[in-house]
Amino acid sequence: MERIAIGFLGCGNIGSAVYRLLEERGSEIEINEGVAFEVKKILVRDVRRSRGLNVPEGVFTDDPQEVVNDPDISIILEFMGGEQPAADYVIRALRGGKTVVTANKMALSLHWKEMLSAARSGGAGLYFEASVCGAVPVIRAMSSSLQANRISSVMGIINGTTNYILSRMSREGAPYDAVLADAQRLGLAEPDPTADVEGYDAAYKLSILAMLAFHRYVSVGSIYREGITEVTPLDVQCGQELGLTLKLLAVAKESDGKIQLRVHPTFVPDDHPLASVSDAFNAVYIDGHACGETMFYGRGAGPMPTASALVSDLICAGKAKRHELPAVEDEDCPLAKDWSCEYFVRMRAVDEPGVLALIAGEFARYGISISSMIQKGERDESGYVQLIFLTHKAREHAVRQALKGMDSATIAGVSMIRVEGR
Amino acid sequence: MERIAIGFLGCGNIGSAVYRLLEERGSEIEINEGVAFEVKKILVRDVRRSRGLNVPEGVFTDDPQEVVNDPDISIILEFMGGEQPAADYVIRALRGGKTVVTANKMALSLHWKEMLSAARSGGAGLYFEASVCGAVPVIRAMSSSLQANRISSVMGIINGTTNYILSRMSREGAPYDAVLADAQRLGLAEPDPTADVEGYDAAYKLSILAMLAFHRYVSVGSIYREGITEVTPLDVQCGQELGLTLKLLAVAKESDGKIQLRVHPTFVPDDHPLASVSDAFNAVYIDGHACGETMFYGRGAGPMPTASALVSDLICAGKAKRHELPAVEDEDCPLAKDWSCEYFVRMRAVDEPGVLALIAGEFARYGISISSMIQKGERDESGYVQLIFLTHKAREHAVRQALKGMDSATIAGVSMIRVEGR
Repeated sequence: MERIAIGFLGCGNIGSAVYRLLEERGSEIEINEGVAFEVKKILVRDVRRSRGLNVPEGVFTDDPQEVVNDPDISIILEFMGGEQPAADYVIRALRGGKTVVTANKMALSLHWKEMLSAARSGGAGLYFEASVCGAVPVIRAMSSSLQANRISSVMGIINGTTNYILSRMSREGAPYDAVLADAQRLGLAEPDPTADVEGYDAAYKLSILAMLAFHRYVSVGSIYREGITEVTPLDVQCGQELGLTLKLLAVAKESDGKIQLRVHPTFVPDDHPLASVSDAFNAVYIDGHACGETMFYGRGAGPMPTASALVSDLICAGKAKRHELPAVEDEDCPLAKDWSCEYFVRMRAVDEPGVLALIAGEFARYGISISSMIQKGERDESGYVQLIFLTHKAREHAVRQALKGMDSATIAGVSMIRVEGR
Repeated sequence: MERIAIGFLGCGNIGSAVYRLLEERGSEIEINEGVAFEVKKILVRDVRRSRGLNVPEGVFTDDPQEVVNDPDISIILEFMGGEQPAADYVIRALRGGKTVVTANKMALSLHWKEMLSAARSGGAGLYFEASVCGAVPVIRAMSSSLQANRISSVMGIINGTTNYILSRMSREGAPYDAVLADAQRLGLAEPDPTADVEGYDAAYKLSILAMLAFHRYVSVGSIYREGITEVTPLDVQCGQELGLTLKLLAVAKESDGKIQLRVHPTFVPDDHPLASVSDAFNAVYIDGHACGETMFYGRGAGPMPTASALVSDLICAGKAKRHELPAVEDEDCPLAKDWSCEYFVRMRAVDEPGVLALIAGEFARYGISISSMIQKGERDESGYVQLIFLTHKAREHAVRQALKGMDSATIAGVSMIRVEGR
């Protein structure tokens, strides 16, 4: 069988896993899928570094041109990570007619239009299953299995680091800082954890998911984003007592023709399928008007799960007679500036007559209906008590206004956490 | 845009849902996917019956030839259900070069080889996403997303009726018969529930999943099958006390080059993702050497979820330049005659000195190691006590031998339930 010449951009943990997977499963793939590949060039920083791979002489190169411009190479796999120079290489390859398979959500989401237009002009394919949720085939599900649906919502646990941290905070009642430090020690969080814990990584992925769901362009910057750094063990515990599990959720929801796009700590009911997605696992929950609720669950990161997705894309790319680009218009997705959901509000309030009336009055003034209220424990040394409110569905702006309206002398330490999934 | 002429075999709830979905979403599908369809012929039993559909004159017919032999029709959707005459029509259509999209797991699994060979000889495509788990795109995931994996196990909750019954038995402690009667009243179980409650339906679907996972032919008859009719509330409850949830699981597992194929009531740990799949939902849990654990969850039945899968297949079929048939060899899958897993064994034993020693002795004689034992409650009027054993991994044959060896005068009412998922 004729082998399709391919090139790698990068050869760290993921690239090495792809190389090994192709080596190990190449003959099975040839039998079952009718395609075969030959890795012709691999771009690395240091060609002399040993990677424990069985790579023939002359394949490693430190010159990107040798990969991007090689006329024999028809498919390029990119797993350099980071925005640049990855995005540049990908765009040049696509323009030159080379199909690209990428795991790089950052480069893809920040350069979506340029990449798509480069692919169009070059007649190349762009495959990116591995860029969202590792081995979980949610990209292909959206593009090849849910096409008949009008999708109303996509909710995902799409960042493993934060899910690991929140899972341990839930199980152990431990504070954020301690669990983060542990995750860093274990290599589950970066030395600079910002991209994960502040929700940037989730926002990159959400922009990609939302474009496929709603067929319009979504810029990463248009996504409301709140990280997990302010989450306290007390919030986690109060939620548990109310039957709620805390997750960093990426949400894309359609209502009245507008799309809500947001990444924030979110309570989900314990019996919601997303609640049982623990530790480094990822899951995306999609609601379509025909399919109903559906969920895709699995390992969202790691060399082998990511390689599984990359090689599946590679096989699809290798077999394609004609590459299909995602059905996403360049026009911006119409964004919702406000949204409604249920809210969990915890606050410390002075334990005095009239205080509860004042708080309840502010909620009422903004039309926010309370579904349950708990006063937790005894008054503390400063004369405060903990109050926890669960609201019925309310507008975000209204809740913010109501909280502002409550005299800051009367209340302190307010947590406002959205509740989704019921 | 040129419309592809298609034909329906059947027009009950599912066919009507497909017709409506195409009517409602046709123009979106045209824009996003670049294909358009026209329903040219619909086979029904009674052409005069009103179905509340906006179907032009002359489309309904009671003559199967008019669908199967119409030279204009290139794709046929089949949702008649049942083995015959559906299988015959499908095979004739395929042989005649018409691509078939089917929701019929029974006809497909019982006539797999004939259908595949008919498709091969006719140069036609055969699409069957809707035949397993309704809207859950597990067929496409296996064939287009997990191709690089060596799959070691597939475990599924793939029958909604039994999952509904077991979910209610778990929640309410109700007996099987009462919940079944209720399910029948609600239309969630057939008047003759055999196909569901005895595991036949799950076996049809498991044979299809196993063929895709292991690339060899699996006959439905080769699957070990045990239904849920003997499940008691006491078993369900004892499991709950041990942190286990009871499910009817369809299992296909590879070990030592042999494949275990079985459908039976199964305990899974409460924190396993399959444990939280409740009521009429379906889920398939797949373990691959590269992707790791992954799960696909959603609505396994119902007109709209099934229509979602059928139309997604229809779109794929309409766009395909060349139809691809599943990579499954005609050769039989090498079957395991025995297997090992953990076991839950509950029995009533005479409350006398020496009885426990006898029971423990039989377990030991067959090399079965006990991980925990509970004596439940006081002795009853007949002088029996309830004993519950959880074993470590043990061979099925050994467990059966050990149970036989325990004197039937000494013990009575033995339940043996397999435990998977840890």
